[in-house]
Amino acid sequence: MTKKATRLYPLPPREVPAGGIYADLELPPPGRQDPSRPYVIINMVSSIDGKSTILGRTAGLGGEADRQTMRNLRSKVDAVMVGAGTLRSERISLGLDEPADGPQPLAVVATQTGDVPLESNLILHKSQEVLLLMPENLRVPRYESARWLRVPGGPSGNLDLREALKRLKNEQAVDLLLVEGGPTLNHALASRGLADELFLTLAPKLLGGEGRDSATVLDGAPLPPKALSPELLSEHLAGDELFLRYDLHPPPYFV
Amino acid sequence: MTKKATRLYPLPPREVPAGGIYADLELPPPGRQDPSRPYVIINMVSSIDGKSTILGRTAGLGGEADRQTMRNLRSKVDAVMVGAGTLRSERISLGLDEPADGPQPLAVVATQTGDVPLESNLILHKSQEVLLLMPENLRVPRYESARWLRVPGGPSGNLDLREALKRLKNEQAVDLLLVEGGPTLNHALASRGLADELFLTLAPKLLGGEGRDSATVLDGAPLPPKALSPELLSEHLAGDELFLRYDLHPPPYFV
Repeated sequence: MTKKATRLYPLPPREVPAGGIYADLELPPPGRQDPSRPYVIINMVSSIDGKSTILGRTAGLGGEADRQTMRNLRSKVDAVMVGAGTLRSERISLGLDEPADGPQPLAVVATQTGDVPLESNLILHKSQEVLLLMPENLRVPRYESARWLRVPGGPSGNLDLREALKRLKNEQAVDLLLVEGGPTLNHALASRGLADELFLTLAPKLLGGEGRDSATVLDGAPLPPKALSPELLSEHLAGDELFLRYDLHPPPYFV
Repeated sequence: MTKKATRLYPLPPREVPAGGIYADLELPPPGRQDPSRPYVIINMVSSIDGKSTILGRTAGLGGEADRQTMRNLRSKVDAVMVGAGTLRSERISLGLDEPADGPQPLAVVATQTGDVPLESNLILHKSQEVLLLMPENLRVPRYESARWLRVPGGPSGNLDLREALKRLKNEQAVDLLLVEGGPTLNHALASRGLADELFLTLAPKLLGGEGRDSATVLDGAPLPPKALSPELLSEHLAGDELFLRYDLHPPPYFV
């Protein structure tokens, strides 16, 4: 049962066909893919006051239309990635509910430390594979249920995300990657010009919170205000929940 | 010169008349005013990732359509209020640019401490009056340019905002009050059920930042997710900037 939704933008408005928001979306847009890496889209939900978690968890922030939108985006990509911190904070799925029509996306978890509670916190779907992205000098216990990809550290010693994306494409055939947070991974990608689009659900809530109680969509060092000039590609409305799609296209000097 | 804007919602969409977004708005909506206090609207701008300041300042976050929207809202109200922290962080105006058609709104600054740099940071308009709201036990230097209103402390010892609003209405004839932050004052009002509407400009920027570098629209203790159920009243688009108007109507059990 699909909740009624309306595309508000681009004009003219129209009702969303059965299947829900983004069901008919084609990704990547023609001509937009950097051939050296996957096309990277970020999908997040936030409250009106910019908070992407309620007491550390995302659960309960989005409504039913948001969950369906998430499923629609997952069904279009080759892999779904989160940072390990997101996996540590709550039990999540990175796949499609059974019965799913097509194959499951590859579940990718990026970790700096190897502290990845796969067994307890990742809901694994039948036939879904899991890949851990980690720095090459990290020693970790062997996870029965996961393969791993070791990537050199970048200039700061952290995982070199550009190299990680390149290898996801060349070695794992990931052409289209969906990132679902957390805010630190989003920031690391966007600040390096490695995120192509942001899908943002604006949930009709005011959550308050501050400091560590209050994650936003992008947490990290302040970015220069002109570093990213997001362009609104489309907007949908379901109930009082807004679904915004932005092209992030960093200006050339920033990449 | 008015930047072209479109009302996206409610449907059907239409171009915004000359004068800009909210130029034809009537406030308060019929039947919505609590007779014991002014009708309170909050107007804020935030980035897509929920940040309402760039390195502590709001300057530069909104575009030209946002500045005009702010002027249109100010032209409709009896008073414009900010918290003293906002005034300490940058030099601001709380009035209408000259030449203004009508009278200037009363400028209200709420302070807990009396640290209010009126002379250096408040741009005073001809004929605009200034009122300081402060706890009744506070001793402050006399400001030549301001009157003051002393209000009892609430249960927490802070300014009793419900009493302050009541006295603004009864003693200062403020029927319609515009609040322009900061996030702490917004939180204090919204969490007490004292804010009727939120006007939010979503600027097409990703700013990053975290902790003290990153104020959001509402900073303070986490609110119960169902405490406020904002309802989208209207939405406009100018360039890639979105103008959202929400009714905050707290559920009765929360007031």
